[in-house]
Amino acid sequence: MKIVIAPDSFKGSISARKAALAIQEGILRAGPNIETVIVPMADGGEGTVESLVAATNGHLQEVVVKDPLGRDVNAVYGILGHDNTCVIEIASASGLPLLRKEERNPMLTTSYGTGELILHALNKGCRKFIIGLGGSGTNDGGAGMLQALGIKLLDSGGKHLPFGGGSLDLLADIDLSGLDPRVREAEFIVACDVDNPLVGPSGASAVYGPQKGATPEMVEVLDRNINHYANIIEKKTNISIHHKFGAGAAGGLGGAFQAFFNAKMERGIEIIMKQTGLKQKLYGASLLITGEGQMDFQTARGKTPAGVARLAKSMGIPTFAIVGSIGPGIEQLSNMGIEAVFSIVNKPMDIKEAMKDSYDLLSSAAEQVVRVYLSR
Amino acid sequence: MKIVIAPDSFKGSISARKAALAIQEGILRAGPNIETVIVPMADGGEGTVESLVAATNGHLQEVVVKDPLGRDVNAVYGILGHDNTCVIEIASASGLPLLRKEERNPMLTTSYGTGELILHALNKGCRKFIIGLGGSGTNDGGAGMLQALGIKLLDSGGKHLPFGGGSLDLLADIDLSGLDPRVREAEFIVACDVDNPLVGPSGASAVYGPQKGATPEMVEVLDRNINHYANIIEKKTNISIHHKFGAGAAGGLGGAFQAFFNAKMERGIEIIMKQTGLKQKLYGASLLITGEGQMDFQTARGKTPAGVARLAKSMGIPTFAIVGSIGPGIEQLSNMGIEAVFSIVNKPMDIKEAMKDSYDLLSSAAEQVVRVYLSR
Repeated sequence: MKIVIAPDSFKGSISARKAALAIQEGILRAGPNIETVIVPMADGGEGTVESLVAATNGHLQEVVVKDPLGRDVNAVYGILGHDNTCVIEIASASGLPLLRKEERNPMLTTSYGTGELILHALNKGCRKFIIGLGGSGTNDGGAGMLQALGIKLLDSGGKHLPFGGGSLDLLADIDLSGLDPRVREAEFIVACDVDNPLVGPSGASAVYGPQKGATPEMVEVLDRNINHYANIIEKKTNISIHHKFGAGAAGGLGGAFQAFFNAKMERGIEIIMKQTGLKQKLYGASLLITGEGQMDFQTARGKTPAGVARLAKSMGIPTFAIVGSIGPGIEQLSNMGIEAVFSIVNKPMDIKEAMKDSYDLLSSAAEQVVRVYLSR
Repeated sequence: MKIVIAPDSFKGSISARKAALAIQEGILRAGPNIETVIVPMADGGEGTVESLVAATNGHLQEVVVKDPLGRDVNAVYGILGHDNTCVIEIASASGLPLLRKEERNPMLTTSYGTGELILHALNKGCRKFIIGLGGSGTNDGGAGMLQALGIKLLDSGGKHLPFGGGSLDLLADIDLSGLDPRVREAEFIVACDVDNPLVGPSGASAVYGPQKGATPEMVEVLDRNINHYANIIEKKTNISIHHKFGAGAAGGLGGAFQAFFNAKMERGIEIIMKQTGLKQKLYGASLLITGEGQMDFQTARGKTPAGVARLAKSMGIPTFAIVGSIGPGIEQLSNMGIEAVFSIVNKPMDIKEAMKDSYDLLSSAAEQVVRVYLSR
C-alpha cells in the first residue's frame, strides 16, 4: 500500500516538511510496510521555497539585500534541482515580519529587495522564476522592485523617486532604457491567491494597507498615489493595471509584474502541484493525507488541502486531512475529496500546548487514522 | 454493515446512553444505511442502573430512604425488563455526592438507605440483585444496610448500635433472628472493581477513608473499629472478611455482602456485558465503537472500553475508541483490541468547552472515523 503525504504548513507551528515527516512517522507506526511518499505543499506564500526545493532536490541561496526600510537583510531564495528555476517568496526581502510593529508604514516601505533577489538570480543564470506574493510589508506597487532592476521612476524634475507608497504621487515619467535586458528574456510565474485589483475599495491599499500599518488617512493617500502610478504606467506601456485581477496582490507587486514582465498569474497551489509532480506521485496510491493549521469552510475556497484533494479525487484516491483546529463548515469539504478531517488536539489544551507538541500530536493522529483505514 | 456502539459514560459530561446516541448520529451521517446497535455500558458504578434498564427495557423505581446522615433522600433503583432483577447503585442512597463537603464524615455516615432499597425491591418481588459498589460516602462495613434488613447489631448493654463507622467498636453481639427471610432466598451479584481487603493499610479506611472526609486520626479509629466489627462477625458466622478481596469496597459493604448474603463478587464490566447481551449483539458486526471520558494506560486495567474491546477482539471485531482526553500509554490498548483512539476535542479548547459541546464533538468525531473506515 502506498500513501502520499502532502500537507501545507501548520502556520506558526511547523513547516509543511516537518508536518509531512510527522505524518510519515505515524503511518509507519500503524503499518511498517506502507510505502510513503512525502510531498510538502505550500500555497505560494510562506513555505513555497522550502517545498519546491525539497521536492526537486534544489538548493537555497542566501543574499544580502535591502529590507522594506532599506536596511541590510539576509534574504533567501531557492533554485530548483531539475531546471534551474528560481523561486522567490517576496516576504523574504520585503515581508511584513521583517518589521517591528512600530516600523510598519507602507508610506515608506519598498519592494526594492525583491528586485535585488531577481537580479542575483539572473546573474546565476536563472531565466525562469516562480514568485510567491504572500506576506509583503509594502504598498509601493512594486516600484522598488522595478528600480532595483534598472527601471527609472522619475519625478517632474527628473530625479529618482524615493522609496515607499507615499512618494508615488511624485511620479512623472518612467524610463525603461536601463531595464536589465535579461528580465525581458525571463519568464515569471506569479503565485497569487488574491483577486484584488490595484485600486479602489477592494484594492491593495484599502484591503491590505491597514495590516501593513496604514492609518485610514494613509490608506486614502496610498490609494490615490497608486492610482496615479498606474496612470503613468498606462501612458508608458498602454497596459492598464488599475483593475486587473491580482494586480493588488503584495501591495501592487502583482500589477508591476503584469505591466512590465513576461508574467503569468497562477493559483499558488496549482504551481506547487505542477512543480512537485504531485500527480505523478499519486499514481498507484491508496490514500492522500494532507493537513494545515486550521481547516474550515475557507479551505474549500482554494486553500492547499482542497487543491490536492481535488487532484486526488480526480484520480479516484480519497484524501484525509489532519489539522490543528477544525472550524465550521467542514461538511462542504467532502465534495472536493476530503473524506475525513481530524484534529491533532487529543485532549483539552490551549493553543500554545498544541503548537509546542504539534509534531508528536500530528504523528499520533496520523497513526490512529491509518489504523482505522487498515482495520477494515 | 453493522456497527455496535458501546461507550461508557464521559464522567462529568454525558451519560453512556447520551454518548451512544451521539456516536450513532455521527455514524449515520457517514453512512445512512449502516445498521447501528446501541449498548450503553457502565463499570458497575455510576450509570449501571441506566445502562441495564435501557438495555432490557426495564424501569426505574424511586423511593424515599435515609441518606448517609439519616436524612430523607429520593433514591432510585432499576428493575430489569427481562427477569425482574433489581439493580442498585449504592451511591444512590449512600453516596458521597449526597453530602456537602463539610458534611463528609465516615465516623457518622451509614449505609442504612441501601438496605432500605433492597427491602423495597424485596417487597416488589425481586429475588435477584445486582449491586454496584462505586461512590459510597460510608465506612461502616455495611452495618447500616444490615440493620435496615433486620439484623440487630448490639452493644454490651444490648442496645442497638448508632450509625457510622465511629461506633463499630461498641459492637458486642449480632442477632440474626430478625433478618428478613427473603434476603436468604435472594441472590446478589456484586459489581466490584477494587481488590482492597477490609482492614489494614490497603483496607477500606486507609485507602478510601480520606476521600470520604476522614482525617488521619479518624482513619486509625475507623480501621481499628472495622477490624473489631469483622472479629465479631467471624465469631458469629465463622467467616473472616478481614482480608477477603473486595471486602474493602464501598467502606466495607463488600465485606457485609460476603459474610451474610448469598453474594458473588464480579467485575462490573463483566456483569454489564452479560446483562446487556453485548456478545449476542456483536454477532455479525463489522465494528465496535466505544468511548469514555479519559483513556490512558489505566484503561488497560479492566476499565469498560478494554472489557468490551477484549470481547469484540475474541470475535474478530476491531474496536475504535472515541474519548474526551487521550492520556499516556494508549499503545498498550491495541493488545486488547482497541485498534485506534480519537479525542472528541477538535481544536485547542479548555475542558469546560469540551464538556459543554461533548455531544456534538463526539458525534462529529464518530462521523470522521467511520468515514475513514468506509473509504477503503
